[in-house]
Amino acid sequence: MSARRKIIVAAAQMGPVQRNHTRKQTIDRMVVLLNQAADRGADIAVYPEAILTPFFPHWHIEDEQELLGYFEDSMPNGGVQPLFDAAKDRGVGFSLGYAELTEDGRRFNTQIMVSGEGEIIGKYRKIHLPGYSDPRPHEPVQNLEKLYFEVGDLGFPVWEAFGGRVGMSICNDRRWPESYRVMGLQGVELILIGYNTLMHVPAMAEVDHLQSFHNLLSMQSNAYFNGTWVVAAGRAGVEEGISQLGQSAIIAPSGEVVAQAYTDGDEVITAEVDFDACNIFKKYMFNMREHRRPEHYGLISAPVSETWDAGELLDTQPVSGR
Amino acid sequence: MSARRKIIVAAAQMGPVQRNHTRKQTIDRMVVLLNQAADRGADIAVYPEAILTPFFPHWHIEDEQELLGYFEDSMPNGGVQPLFDAAKDRGVGFSLGYAELTEDGRRFNTQIMVSGEGEIIGKYRKIHLPGYSDPRPHEPVQNLEKLYFEVGDLGFPVWEAFGGRVGMSICNDRRWPESYRVMGLQGVELILIGYNTLMHVPAMAEVDHLQSFHNLLSMQSNAYFNGTWVVAAGRAGVEEGISQLGQSAIIAPSGEVVAQAYTDGDEVITAEVDFDACNIFKKYMFNMREHRRPEHYGLISAPVSETWDAGELLDTQPVSGR
Repeated sequence: MSARRKIIVAAAQMGPVQRNHTRKQTIDRMVVLLNQAADRGADIAVYPEAILTPFFPHWHIEDEQELLGYFEDSMPNGGVQPLFDAAKDRGVGFSLGYAELTEDGRRFNTQIMVSGEGEIIGKYRKIHLPGYSDPRPHEPVQNLEKLYFEVGDLGFPVWEAFGGRVGMSICNDRRWPESYRVMGLQGVELILIGYNTLMHVPAMAEVDHLQSFHNLLSMQSNAYFNGTWVVAAGRAGVEEGISQLGQSAIIAPSGEVVAQAYTDGDEVITAEVDFDACNIFKKYMFNMREHRRPEHYGLISAPVSETWDAGELLDTQPVSGR
Repeated sequence: MSARRKIIVAAAQMGPVQRNHTRKQTIDRMVVLLNQAADRGADIAVYPEAILTPFFPHWHIEDEQELLGYFEDSMPNGGVQPLFDAAKDRGVGFSLGYAELTEDGRRFNTQIMVSGEGEIIGKYRKIHLPGYSDPRPHEPVQNLEKLYFEVGDLGFPVWEAFGGRVGMSICNDRRWPESYRVMGLQGVELILIGYNTLMHVPAMAEVDHLQSFHNLLSMQSNAYFNGTWVVAAGRAGVEEGISQLGQSAIIAPSGEVVAQAYTDGDEVITAEVDFDACNIFKKYMFNMREHRRPEHYGLISAPVSETWDAGELLDTQPVSGR
């Protein structure tokens, strides 16, 4: 009597990828994780952001050839082929984050979705690049994504895949409700997220102790607001001296965390995803056609130049009133 | 050396307002709470949604005159004047939710902001009306806001008041990130919310146990995403046989709950609000001019007819793919 749509999902958290690790060593670890996920019945495994290399936006690379060494100029390629082969062999799909170099020399922070037949069926390019484009030599760790990558140009697509409607986001995207909402307005039921979150952000050191709270808060809330599952895999442990959050998680449309990593290294977590568990939220509380009022949301899609400028805060003075 | 802007805020949670309570009894309770807030140094106290009467959208009222008896046709009026007088006397502002009947017969679910001089300085009309407009006689409790109220027509304004930039939202508005974001894009630093949340929602009974989690999740996350304080006052206890959540809370721009009610009745909670605690989020992580990409957000302000229809869910079948 049941037409319920259920799959098993996995988040494949990964410990550090150091500069002296070879690409082959890293791919070998990923194949091990894929096999662990398959052994636990997974239909798809999600890997962290830009995981084929160390997270190089954390330092300033002035040499162009050295920088391009962190990028993939084709996908799949010889290096990652074993991962595609393993996927096909085990019948397990995956979602992989990597630094993409296009034929015409453009650079993106990219994530793909690969079917259990080993075919690329979706691609997303990161839209919310954090940080800055000018190196800050006085800070112990850089956040140079705005220097190394262009803003993604593919929007927030949703694919019919793995038995449901599936979208992707990357790292900082998960802190912006707009990312989830654009997919929610296309009926998304499962969002695959790779990330890489610092335990210490120099510009915001006074809230370092809240990194774990903010990671879960961002994903739990937006899963609930959009009635969607979220599977998120993070980089963990100390990479090139820099501590990463980890805390990979699988989150239900209720906002509840149903699986969570507990180590600071390579670790697979799995959960059953019932796509129909989204329905109660999508039909009632968050029925977007019935309750949303876009005539009052114009400012959200207005050019940023039309909105309030945080630069006004630089000279903090009591405002008038009261 | 400090130009930091600090005030004390209060949430004035209220227990049930039964049908046999007189308007005077209710106002007397509100004055008691205002004085408690003043004794604790508050600059402003926030009351729950539509608090001058029982929350009448919970039942179907067919008689027009009976229905209009729940509305205020002017503000202030003789009934609530003692509250305005107390505010002026103590120098404490307040924010009050009430059912508004306009001169031309329109009905809104409204909240006002009143200065410590007892003057109305802001008005908001609820935009995200939950529920439905057709009574559901088979259900033990109704949610007829869409029958009794029009959608608010004032947008989400932000005022310079009480030393900062202040906005308002009402109940179900707090579950929609758009409400906070439209104010965030105007630099909001403090959002005043009155609400009234059922412990048992017939159409979503399977997630009744999450009412408390969802209440805090919605406000904590959006406070963080927009780097703003939130002060939220709920109706609590059993009103006309219907259980209300309570759980009034004051939330920091970090998303942390800094004060929370613990009773199911009339209760004042207070906290110090440092408006400059918003700055770290507004300047860096959530600097909206630097990081937002509205060119990819078009669907959010598109007419609802252009977005995915949850009605498609009614015949749940496996979708193609995989």
